[in-house]
Amino acid sequence: MANMIPGWKDKALFTPGPLTTSRTVKGAMLQDLGSRDEAFISVVRDIRRRLLAIAETGPEYVAIPMQGSGTFGIEAVLATSVPRDGAVLTIINGAYGRRIAHMCDVMGIRHVDAEFPENTLPELNVIASILNRHDGITHVAIVHCETTTGIVNPIDRIGEMLRDRDVTYFVDAMSSFGAIPIDFEGWGIDYLVSSANKCIEGVPGFSFVIARRKKLLTTEGLARSLSLDLFSQWKGLETNGQFRFTPPTHALLAFHQALIELEAEGGVAGRSARYRHNYEVLLSGMAALGFETYLPQELQGYIITSFRYLEHDNFDFDAFYQRLNKKGYVIYPGKVSDAACFRVGNIGRLFESDMRDLLAAVRSTLLELNIELRRGNEEVSM
Amino acid sequence: MANMIPGWKDKALFTPGPLTTSRTVKGAMLQDLGSRDEAFISVVRDIRRRLLAIAETGPEYVAIPMQGSGTFGIEAVLATSVPRDGAVLTIINGAYGRRIAHMCDVMGIRHVDAEFPENTLPELNVIASILNRHDGITHVAIVHCETTTGIVNPIDRIGEMLRDRDVTYFVDAMSSFGAIPIDFEGWGIDYLVSSANKCIEGVPGFSFVIARRKKLLTTEGLARSLSLDLFSQWKGLETNGQFRFTPPTHALLAFHQALIELEAEGGVAGRSARYRHNYEVLLSGMAALGFETYLPQELQGYIITSFRYLEHDNFDFDAFYQRLNKKGYVIYPGKVSDAACFRVGNIGRLFESDMRDLLAAVRSTLLELNIELRRGNEEVSM
Repeated sequence: MANMIPGWKDKALFTPGPLTTSRTVKGAMLQDLGSRDEAFISVVRDIRRRLLAIAETGPEYVAIPMQGSGTFGIEAVLATSVPRDGAVLTIINGAYGRRIAHMCDVMGIRHVDAEFPENTLPELNVIASILNRHDGITHVAIVHCETTTGIVNPIDRIGEMLRDRDVTYFVDAMSSFGAIPIDFEGWGIDYLVSSANKCIEGVPGFSFVIARRKKLLTTEGLARSLSLDLFSQWKGLETNGQFRFTPPTHALLAFHQALIELEAEGGVAGRSARYRHNYEVLLSGMAALGFETYLPQELQGYIITSFRYLEHDNFDFDAFYQRLNKKGYVIYPGKVSDAACFRVGNIGRLFESDMRDLLAAVRSTLLELNIELRRGNEEVSM
Repeated sequence: MANMIPGWKDKALFTPGPLTTSRTVKGAMLQDLGSRDEAFISVVRDIRRRLLAIAETGPEYVAIPMQGSGTFGIEAVLATSVPRDGAVLTIINGAYGRRIAHMCDVMGIRHVDAEFPENTLPELNVIASILNRHDGITHVAIVHCETTTGIVNPIDRIGEMLRDRDVTYFVDAMSSFGAIPIDFEGWGIDYLVSSANKCIEGVPGFSFVIARRKKLLTTEGLARSLSLDLFSQWKGLETNGQFRFTPPTHALLAFHQALIELEAEGGVAGRSARYRHNYEVLLSGMAALGFETYLPQELQGYIITSFRYLEHDNFDFDAFYQRLNKKGYVIYPGKVSDAACFRVGNIGRLFESDMRDLLAAVRSTLLELNIELRRGNEEVSM
């Protein structure tokens, strides 16, 4: 297999995760630790402490890692926290919001959907009026950065709107936590989920929940699943520092190293600055090559960007993707419902030079596909 | 943190997993692959093919990796395959059998328990009479090697007994698959679950299910969970080779390497021989030091062994454990309900020399604790 050739150069991943991680993060996995051994328990303890430090929360919040992908973490929150007579208002403007609604269907949880076009922000007055009409709603769920498009939803203003309502506020911050500042207390967030292989730049294998302790304490015995019982997972970690069920020890060691590297980069502010710069370099370079973004610029976040296919007879996405891939650059297919798009992630161990390398590769790929560059841009500096 | 000191020698793990893995297995994780990229998809395809080769099944079976620990895989089978009006007969002689019953409770799945003492085999006539009395039973679940004690249950004879009954036969082979031969077709197994970090000697991060295709095909739309929907997971892998939700790419790369190393060792037969030899060396060495096994020898498997605490005033398990740990040997606490025991695993990248090193460490630890060695055994060769 090609990837097994010694010395094979890793491809750079311009994806929403799994990402390109640092060598030191991957190197932390070269160790087998017993999952009930004190050496490992102290790593988990430090991970949980550092997550709360990044979140800048007080002792009202707790951090709970959960085995599986980010989706497992989202399902753990819903499966554990929504009572049998509860209902979820799901705010949807992309595939990940829709996934929350679908998850509710599968689990038999009642939900009301507030759905908006994928290239627009959710409208607060619509959400408020749904809340006014349905007094059985116990939970409001929203995706912070919709990876579908890259749009960043106003979780601050929605949180403010919910302040005087008796609902649990649940934020899917999969693609944003660690790189976009989030004010847990100010915005009234009760549960937030993110994943190891996103802006913290760890490897995939688990997600984590940051939960308001007071809310979590009301969920004992509610869970619809043993594996995804968030309350019991927390209780286990609090009791003896151990996971209830085998944790991905190596992924947790990598994540611990990733948290140390995030701190060294200047925390959320430092990482945010690098990603934003990656985004700006990408955006101007792609514009010069004729690519348009799916979103209007004021809605576009700096985590991942959806670009429309070039309107050119020779533009074939599969060929474009494969040629970039062979050059060592992995981009990501699109996911929006109503337009032909592909996506480029700005996150992971990527720097300005990587973005410029990608742009140069896009440029030569277009030339290979016999797509003439836009007039005046042939000499654009990469 | 101690484990972060460069050059720190890894401790040897005599545990039921996470295990000591080879350097090459861990080294396979030094690569970031895109989860939707062909390089990764081909690794997953080869993993699924190799799992069926180890199982020696024909095309009636399929292999499905599932994110999370082994428990997640067990829950995925139950959550997906038991219809709303179904019921599970859980055969219990240890903590992992009990966990299956507990899982059913949490999910609201009806179950009837056939519970036996932890140091005995399940009685076939009791199981048959329960099946005769309850005609609503659709599934029979049993643990192959109960990690609680190390007992190996007669999944062959139970399978034969079920042959003419219209039930789904589900085997939790977490600790046995890859090291104890299993005859899927002969014993009529419909679903079997094991985990990456057991006898295949990968790192933790996912489990896998080997399922009879015909049975799996009847489960579409039945799942009680989105994340743990085994049918959809399989459908996704069959459709485009991809996981539905982010897979633990690094753990899968490690597992692929582990499968190659299993083949190089002579497959199940070769691995079985090494583990059995480890067990025999351990057993005779521990006996010479005065330790008795919890199980009668004819019931004891070669995967993991439960030893009773020494009956000596100076034997304190915590001190014993910690001192062995400081010497670099990680053993495992006990889990049986009715006796004070600890456990020693014989699996993972361990060879005769490791077992002898452990025995020498146990010997010097006993001396440190002022526990005189049994008469005549002071000079026993380690």
